Amino acid sequence: MNLPSPVGIVGLGLLGGSLARSLRASDPDLRILASSREPEELQAALGEGVIHEALEDPAEVAARAALLVYAVPLGVLLDLLGTHVPLWGPGTVVTDVASLKGPVLRRVRELGGGARFVGSHPMAGAEESGFPASRPGLFDDAPVWLVAGEARPGTRRTVELLWRSVGGCPRWGEAEAHDRTMVLASHLPQLTATALARTLAEAGIARAELGPGGRDMTRLAGSSSRMWADLLRVEASRAAHALRDLAWHLDALAGLLEEEDLDGVVAWMERTRRWKEGEGGV
Amino acid sequence: MNLPSPVGIVGLGLLGGSLARSLRASDPDLRILASSREPEELQAALGEGVIHEALEDPAEVAARAALLVYAVPLGVLLDLLGTHVPLWGPGTVVTDVASLKGPVLRRVRELGGGARFVGSHPMAGAEESGFPASRPGLFDDAPVWLVAGEARPGTRRTVELLWRSVGGCPRWGEAEAHDRTMVLASHLPQLTATALARTLAEAGIARAELGPGGRDMTRLAGSSSRMWADLLRVEASRAAHALRDLAWHLDALAGLLEEEDLDGVVAWMERTRRWKEGEGGV
Repeated sequence: MNLPSPVGIVGLGLLGGSLARSLRASDPDLRILASSREPEELQAALGEGVIHEALEDPAEVAARAALLVYAVPLGVLLDLLGTHVPLWGPGTVVTDVASLKGPVLRRVRELGGGARFVGSHPMAGAEESGFPASRPGLFDDAPVWLVAGEARPGTRRTVELLWRSVGGCPRWGEAEAHDRTMVLASHLPQLTATALARTLAEAGIARAELGPGGRDMTRLAGSSSRMWADLLRVEASRAAHALRDLAWHLDALAGLLEEEDLDGVVAWMERTRRWKEGEGGV
Repeated sequence: MNLPSPVGIVGLGLLGGSLARSLRASDPDLRILASSREPEELQAALGEGVIHEALEDPAEVAARAALLVYAVPLGVLLDLLGTHVPLWGPGTVVTDVASLKGPVLRRVRELGGGARFVGSHPMAGAEESGFPASRPGLFDDAPVWLVAGEARPGTRRTVELLWRSVGGCPRWGEAEAHDRTMVLASHLPQLTATALARTLAEAGIARAELGPGGRDMTRLAGSSSRMWADLLRVEASRAAHALRDLAWHLDALAGLLEEEDLDGVVAWMERTRRWKEGEGGV
């Protein structure tokens, strides 16, 4: 089974650019069309041979692609769908890369595109963004969550093949459970890095003063606020709840230290160490 | 200028083992003696040719080394110094690797060893520990804080050369300022990872469900609780203060989300992004 050609990619940031590069590497015969809000990056992609055709209008990508991937922030995607779904061909296979799947699947269903759409969430990338950060291999061994919704069996198989062909590890799930998990697995770490960076900055600590651990803990402070604003808007209430849970735990740790209960701190660290080593709950 | 030989290393964990490996690689003629609380790891180091002589008693390492490095947790170091300082030869150059320098320098001075001692804090390693995790190159480009105290000029030069010879970047500082910075640059990120891991674990999220960002944010949850207990005991009050600052910021972020003030969240993320990119304050 081969991927349908041409592949259309709307958005050539870190994820869209890396997808184009990885597809080019895995199947040189596949034709790739793309659009981008950044004309210079679009021309760079064409010049580097990462894509075959650079289109100014994303609607043209949507109308011409046999396999269509939206690699744009969630808010942009929700905006585009209204005008784009009517442009999709009857046999087009469509997917996206947004970190939350519920709002996307709902919108596609409302617009009558459900049979042609599988939602994807590749867990790759991190704090970098934009085409210059893109690279082949970004999706190697990356978990890729797939949500089928109303998609036809052939649509499901094609989207699964898309991610396998660039090295990802597809896993099927439900939108609601996926999104609930992501608030904790993705939003909470992001906001924690942001809050930690602020705490350090206000205390006059430069990032250069951090060791490898502190650098790991603040890497996400470089993430794209535009992308995150879309994701946080959708799940603001759950994200706030997760932040308050973490703040509660930090206060509890502070309390142990103020009481000089180092045995309590050690017991806590041993429990989280077991979690980190994959032995399960605390 | 060459390093004095033999070099004695007390403790062959991640830092001591990596130091031995790096010294062997940089100067094959240097003789290395070492002791370890883990007899099997000590024999492994001897068997692999990482050290030339394995000594059961750390006091023998202290008495025989011309350049002596304590690579043990802070609490162990403070215990050893009482019996070891009288064993140091008059020309021995001594250093350590503990992340806090104030308590070490004070203890050495009390015991009359100040002229022969420079405190070191190599900012390398992270959550791994033990000899199996050691490797040559661990100190490549790592900042190494040095605190001179009462050390003689020759002692200072030798300790600086030691770290340069294994690829580190020595920086001289004062104990009090160093320790205050470390509570924020090192203790706070560690405790944040611990609290985040607990929050995720209690919500039923396994580490395997995290993306690259979440994994970065919880890597430190695997750190050695024994090493950290020593460090946190000394600076418990300052560490608690830093944790409460962070909890305050997390609650503030939660408040913005509850009010659906996404512009406020974006403004915050933009400020921390500038900090992360090294443009200074928030």
